[in-house]
Amino acid sequence: MRLRNSNKRKIFNDPVYGFITIPDERIFDIIEHPYFQRLRRIKQLGLTHLVYPGALHTRFHHSLGAMHLMSRALLELKQKGHKISRKEYRGALIAILLHDIGHGPYSHALEHAIVKSVNHEEISKIFINKLNEIFDGKLKLAVKIFEDRYERRFFHKLISGQFDMDRLDYLKRDSFFTGVSEGIVNYERLLNMLEIVDDGPVIEAKGIYSVEKFITARRLMYWQVYLHKTVLSAEYMITKVLERAKKLAMGGEKLYASPALEFFLKNEITLEDFKNNEVLDIFSRLDDYDIFSALKVWSDHNDYILSYLSNALVNRKLFRIELQNEPFEEDYIDSIKEKIKSKYNLSDDEVTYFCFHDKTSNYTYKPDSDNINILFKDGSVKDIAEASDQLNIALLDKPTTKYFVCYPKEITV
Amino acid sequence: MRLRNSNKRKIFNDPVYGFITIPDERIFDIIEHPYFQRLRRIKQLGLTHLVYPGALHTRFHHSLGAMHLMSRALLELKQKGHKISRKEYRGALIAILLHDIGHGPYSHALEHAIVKSVNHEEISKIFINKLNEIFDGKLKLAVKIFEDRYERRFFHKLISGQFDMDRLDYLKRDSFFTGVSEGIVNYERLLNMLEIVDDGPVIEAKGIYSVEKFITARRLMYWQVYLHKTVLSAEYMITKVLERAKKLAMGGEKLYASPALEFFLKNEITLEDFKNNEVLDIFSRLDDYDIFSALKVWSDHNDYILSYLSNALVNRKLFRIELQNEPFEEDYIDSIKEKIKSKYNLSDDEVTYFCFHDKTSNYTYKPDSDNINILFKDGSVKDIAEASDQLNIALLDKPTTKYFVCYPKEITV
Amino acid sequence: MRLRNSNKRKIFNDPVYGFITIPDERIFDIIEHPYFQRLRRIKQLGLTHLVYPGALHTRFHHSLGAMHLMSRALLELKQKGHKISRKEYRGALIAILLHDIGHGPYSHALEHAIVKSVNHEEISKIFINKLNEIFDGKLKLAVKIFEDRYERRFFHKLISGQFDMDRLDYLKRDSFFTGVSEGIVNYERLLNMLEIVDDGPVIEAKGIYSVEKFITARRLMYWQVYLHKTVLSAEYMITKVLERAKKLAMGGEKLYASPALEFFLKNEITLEDFKNNEVLDIFSRLDDYDIFSALKVWSDHNDYILSYLSNALVNRKLFRIELQNEPFEEDYIDSIKEKIKSKYNLSDDEVTYFCFHDKTSNYTYKPDSDNINILFKDGSVKDIAEASDQLNIALLDKPTTKYFVCYPKEITV
Amino acid sequence: MRLRNSNKRKIFNDPVYGFITIPDERIFDIIEHPYFQRLRRIKQLGLTHLVYPGALHTRFHHSLGAMHLMSRALLELKQKGHKISRKEYRGALIAILLHDIGHGPYSHALEHAIVKSVNHEEISKIFINKLNEIFDGKLKLAVKIFEDRYERRFFHKLISGQFDMDRLDYLKRDSFFTGVSEGIVNYERLLNMLEIVDDGPVIEAKGIYSVEKFITARRLMYWQVYLHKTVLSAEYMITKVLERAKKLAMGGEKLYASPALEFFLKNEITLEDFKNNEVLDIFSRLDDYDIFSALKVWSDHNDYILSYLSNALVNRKLFRIELQNEPFEEDYIDSIKEKIKSKYNLSDDEVTYFCFHDKTSNYTYKPDSDNINILFKDGSVKDIAEASDQLNIALLDKPTTKYFVCYPKEITV
Repeated sequence: MRLRNSNKRKIFNDPVYGFITIPDERIFDIIEHPYFQRLRRIKQLGLTHLVYPGALHTRFHHSLGAMHLMSRALLELKQKGHKISRKEYRGALIAILLHDIGHGPYSHALEHAIVKSVNHEEISKIFINKLNEIFDGKLKLAVKIFEDRYERRFFHKLISGQFDMDRLDYLKRDSFFTGVSEGIVNYERLLNMLEIVDDGPVIEAKGIYSVEKFITARRLMYWQVYLHKTVLSAEYMITKVLERAKKLAMGGEKLYASPALEFFLKNEITLEDFKNNEVLDIFSRLDDYDIFSALKVWSDHNDYILSYLSNALVNRKLFRIELQNEPFEEDYIDSIKEKIKSKYNLSDDEVTYFCFHDKTSNYTYKPDSDNINILFKDGSVKDIAEASDQLNIALLDKPTTKYFVCYPKEITV
Repeated sequence: MRLRNSNKRKIFNDPVYGFITIPDERIFDIIEHPYFQRLRRIKQLGLTHLVYPGALHTRFHHSLGAMHLMSRALLELKQKGHKISRKEYRGALIAILLHDIGHGPYSHALEHAIVKSVNHEEISKIFINKLNEIFDGKLKLAVKIFEDRYERRFFHKLISGQFDMDRLDYLKRDSFFTGVSEGIVNYERLLNMLEIVDDGPVIEAKGIYSVEKFITARRLMYWQVYLHKTVLSAEYMITKVLERAKKLAMGGEKLYASPALEFFLKNEITLEDFKNNEVLDIFSRLDDYDIFSALKVWSDHNDYILSYLSNALVNRKLFRIELQNEPFEEDYIDSIKEKIKSKYNLSDDEVTYFCFHDKTSNYTYKPDSDNINILFKDGSVKDIAEASDQLNIALLDKPTTKYFVCYPKEITV
Repeated sequence: MRLRNSNKRKIFNDPVYGFITIPDERIFDIIEHPYFQRLRRIKQLGLTHLVYPGALHTRFHHSLGAMHLMSRALLELKQKGHKISRKEYRGALIAILLHDIGHGPYSHALEHAIVKSVNHEEISKIFINKLNEIFDGKLKLAVKIFEDRYERRFFHKLISGQFDMDRLDYLKRDSFFTGVSEGIVNYERLLNMLEIVDDGPVIEAKGIYSVEKFITARRLMYWQVYLHKTVLSAEYMITKVLERAKKLAMGGEKLYASPALEFFLKNEITLEDFKNNEVLDIFSRLDDYDIFSALKVWSDHNDYILSYLSNALVNRKLFRIELQNEPFEEDYIDSIKEKIKSKYNLSDDEVTYFCFHDKTSNYTYKPDSDNINILFKDGSVKDIAEASDQLNIALLDKPTTKYFVCYPKEITV
Repeated sequence: MRLRNSNKRKIFNDPVYGFITIPDERIFDIIEHPYFQRLRRIKQLGLTHLVYPGALHTRFHHSLGAMHLMSRALLELKQKGHKISRKEYRGALIAILLHDIGHGPYSHALEHAIVKSVNHEEISKIFINKLNEIFDGKLKLAVKIFEDRYERRFFHKLISGQFDMDRLDYLKRDSFFTGVSEGIVNYERLLNMLEIVDDGPVIEAKGIYSVEKFITARRLMYWQVYLHKTVLSAEYMITKVLERAKKLAMGGEKLYASPALEFFLKNEITLEDFKNNEVLDIFSRLDDYDIFSALKVWSDHNDYILSYLSNALVNRKLFRIELQNEPFEEDYIDSIKEKIKSKYNLSDDEVTYFCFHDKTSNYTYKPDSDNINILFKDGSVKDIAEASDQLNIALLDKPTTKYFVCYPKEITV
């Protein structure tokens, strides 16, 4: 489906799919906008590269990849007889292209330490509406699809739903760049089996094993990559270092920081503020480079906590992490804290930067979204949990909460 | 070959080879040193990711990969009956692990604009000697091999020679991460055919087609990736922006910069200075993050040239580049310069930041190193150029110089 | 580990692993023996290529592949400090190389229709003992390992056990040639995690997700490939056609057949007979070519049943197959048979060639062998079923019996 | 492009491309015809699997693959604005699907020894016309395209021309199944760059390096696979054994053979005879199974020459082959022949079965077809030989004739 005759037809090389073709001049213009180019400087997997050194791929590349899969999915549906207009095709592609536009650097850390009241989905909405303004309202349908206000809801569900192109791309891409081949998903087979029933995506029954494989792959990617214990430790450490920097900055301490980072360290910013053009603009200048180049300089700062944590991240002296199925005894945590306080000469407040504990199922893991509908030859539709006689999907669905505690390796417990 | 019983036996995931095993505790300690960890923050291919978005892999990963191939090569040679002691094995692995340790961020730009009199090979030597000191002289053999002072010279040649593990890894790795599958090299076959004759590596005659393929792949990677015209343009632009920044800094202008970058902007550093521990240490803190986070802030600087070029790199508004087989007419270059001067209101000195021309074979491309020796069954050895009746290697060897000129896309010529 | 200096060092190209090196002259001589060369003419997956057209790979290639993995596994174990002598290394490699030597063409069909009382494991034992004779007793240790009479039992378990190199190769290889990428197993990671405890293979705990993935992959390969319904139908049809041919041949009917096939059609052969050199030799001449070239000629035979079934296999007019979780009602089967009898004018006896029903868990599927032992850091060993909190291995273990019935597509039920 | 709403929409698994979709019921019916199913039993690369054991893929799979690429190419051209009707799309797909339908088993041997006056292109024409008859003239456009009688000649050129889908598939497929990764072609990039100028395919200039790589890959596949010396030896041996069998059969000797093979051994068949339905039908029953199962039985025949050669092929005791750039001296050949005659007690006539010499560029290698047209931005078109400044295509084009002589390894020269 080609939308306009154009010599801006652009092809990106992609080691994952070979090529990603930009089907349209307008889409190309959006990609060229600084708001989108900025995603080139935000790694998809934050600090995961400290464990898997190949995992340096960016949200830019992932967004292109998800758009590519959306294009493939819609062409497949057209082939199967579903009417999809050029406007809808373009709208859906733009909507998924921009689905991650609101992400900041090291999102988890940022959202917990710097822009506390704001999550990236909300910021994405503000960005996409702003881009619609910039492009004279030409992104109207994309906005509607993104916000799930378009009547044909399956477009939205392909962006964010039980079986969406976002996840299909990131599983494949993260698996590729980490080298964890267990996560490889046969996306071609899945797209070949894609159908729309009741305005939502379903997979034809002959693809049932591929769906099971997809779900297993996803689970394993969670435990092997997304919730890898060393990655968890690093992510909590960067949250802590940013918390410390913010506390110091709010207290008037002079800290090396880019102007954009300085703004967010020195001010409490709410979602409401983001609707202010200037704040959005400053946010759009913030990326991995601001954070990590600050960490490097902070590792020489005279605040012990700030420099200790910064140096630990820069030179990969990560905290030990203990992981278990039950919560840790309070006594145990306290004993660690005591040792830390005495060794590093810290106060009760300060020790929370050197010893932290949490559980993992809190924030990333949504098992209910594993469910995918299967379409049988007789037209009936069943949830995979019911359709599969091989995998105990019900069991898979049970959130497996893991409790962990992190502290410096120099501490012996 | 295992060197010491150790629970530090470490495995890195690598999407290129699957796994890279660190065979030895000492090697692991070197990898953990901040001098080596720093390579995690220096991209192997500089700004190439602006054209090939997957090309974000680092010199850290490449160094591990080259070490992995060295290990494979030496085990192969041992299997063929060559005596290689544990000490030699470890020495060779350390030497190749550290072969790129002296690289700075965006090496070409750095060496042309910031530390003008110094190239990365020289700095590597200083680093590796320094590490030998730090590790109590335990890297002595590695240093000798690296500096080609060890009597069995083939070890050195496998690091840097006509057929070396450095190049074998980077061709494979760059091909993998760019997605330019034309550069794929069948390294397993080549290593299987490896032999040592007259203290240098040769490939057995039955591998002749693989050698031809290797040479062709290398040529094509040069033209398709390393000397890609858009990449050339970006690399010259970053050189120019750093030149400008240095000029401003030397002139007393206040510039946003990390302490490490500031040091190199404000001082003329010679190779001799690097032998000073402090300078080496400051250099070791410099990486891609310093450069690119400065560019982002500089794009708002009130020096027009600095902010124009910085913004162009950050938001990928790269200069047009014209490429041809003959030098450009002086008149033509002058006419472009005139247009630029009038459009941007620049002086004769200043216009050199907006229009630059050069030829490509100047600095990266060493065709003579394509030659590889072939071992025939009768024991004779011939250069591939002579041994091959398929490829006109002589012709391939002829340096193909390309001349280019770069200038802003807003200029019409 | 090189066993003898030799110019017979031989490398096979293998699309799965790149290269397979034959480490030893004696092993090479065994490969050259007609008994082994014959495996070049026996497809690993019988008639599966009628569904997956790439699945033409042979038992020859699989046997080399399994030997390759055994070599990798033993070198890994040596690196971890286990003593393995050259003799043991060679013995284990020969034993796995020959583990499938007793397979005939379309094994399942052959064992059910032609050499009824004999299974391929028994014939393998006879072959390997015979080869030991031919090679002057030099295979003695291989025979002991193969028959599980060697005191270090882990060698045998790596050939045939809960986690063996046979299965590791065939899952990978079958997945590769069918193109069912769901079955891809990360064999490198698994081998990296291999250890020996209590004389049996275990996987280190950090490899637990890879083991879970291995088990899931195996399940999915079963349902998607090995027990694919169309493959089942074809395999039962070839059993039926051979049964018919044998019945006709025993009754004195003249049938086109190679001398080897004729021998087995005209005689009832027992395991005892195989110990007779002549019978073994005739069996060694039987391969896919004998069977399929006979089918082609038989499709013109004047016995209606023989020609109908032969033609159906040759021209891929396979029977419809119905599959369900419960046994079929006798009435339902009877009604199909009645329709067939009337349509094709068949007797009660004859209808069994046109309508057959069975269940699949009968003969190929051994869920108990899924269990793999996991080695924890504290030295304890647990079965994966117990060690995994992700997969309900217990549930996976439950044999999922499927019932099926096959009959010509021309019959409407 | 979907041609008819159908529940026969069929997908083949293909390890090379993932999936091959059959877009149309009519095409599916052609695939189901016994004439096409027969290609399942003819290996694409004849005896090459004796050197590369994975090379067992069939003309069936290749034909589907070439059809797949044709579909991809035509959709790409449509996207670029070329009008292609549904009828043309289907016609072109059928034409390429059937382009190899006239191949017999071990084509080279067959055409030299059994049906001497007839080549497979001629037989393909007869088959495709016959199928047009069978399908009531519905293949008329496919026939026209195949015979290059359709006015839009580019369709034909994509089947058989300087840059055709036949070759694109076989290079990729043969490379995949042999495991010779040197032959990998980036077909996606090439198809992305495809354009039509002057009714013929051209590649856009930015794809010039991919074209160079394609040409190099092709050259290397020739020397490494298609003209591999051991493969050459095997192919000439099978020609010789069939010649011998035909001579014996014509002389009234009783030989084990399937009825189809017997017919061609006992009769001299001309191209004219093929137009006779019966001959065509007998030919359509001939495949690899007939030839190889005969060889197996012939290895016990009492004609020494027949049994010696048959046994050598079955058990892979292939003749030694010497290869050189100049013709062999007659004296040298004669001396070999004398040794053979005395050792095996053969007459002057008979020795030609044990010693044969030839040159390789005779029959398979068409260097002129390497040329591919390149389309420049200014609309001009140049031959790659002229357009490339990297490869000396002119030199590549020079046919490299190799002379060889084959004889038993027991003969010492």
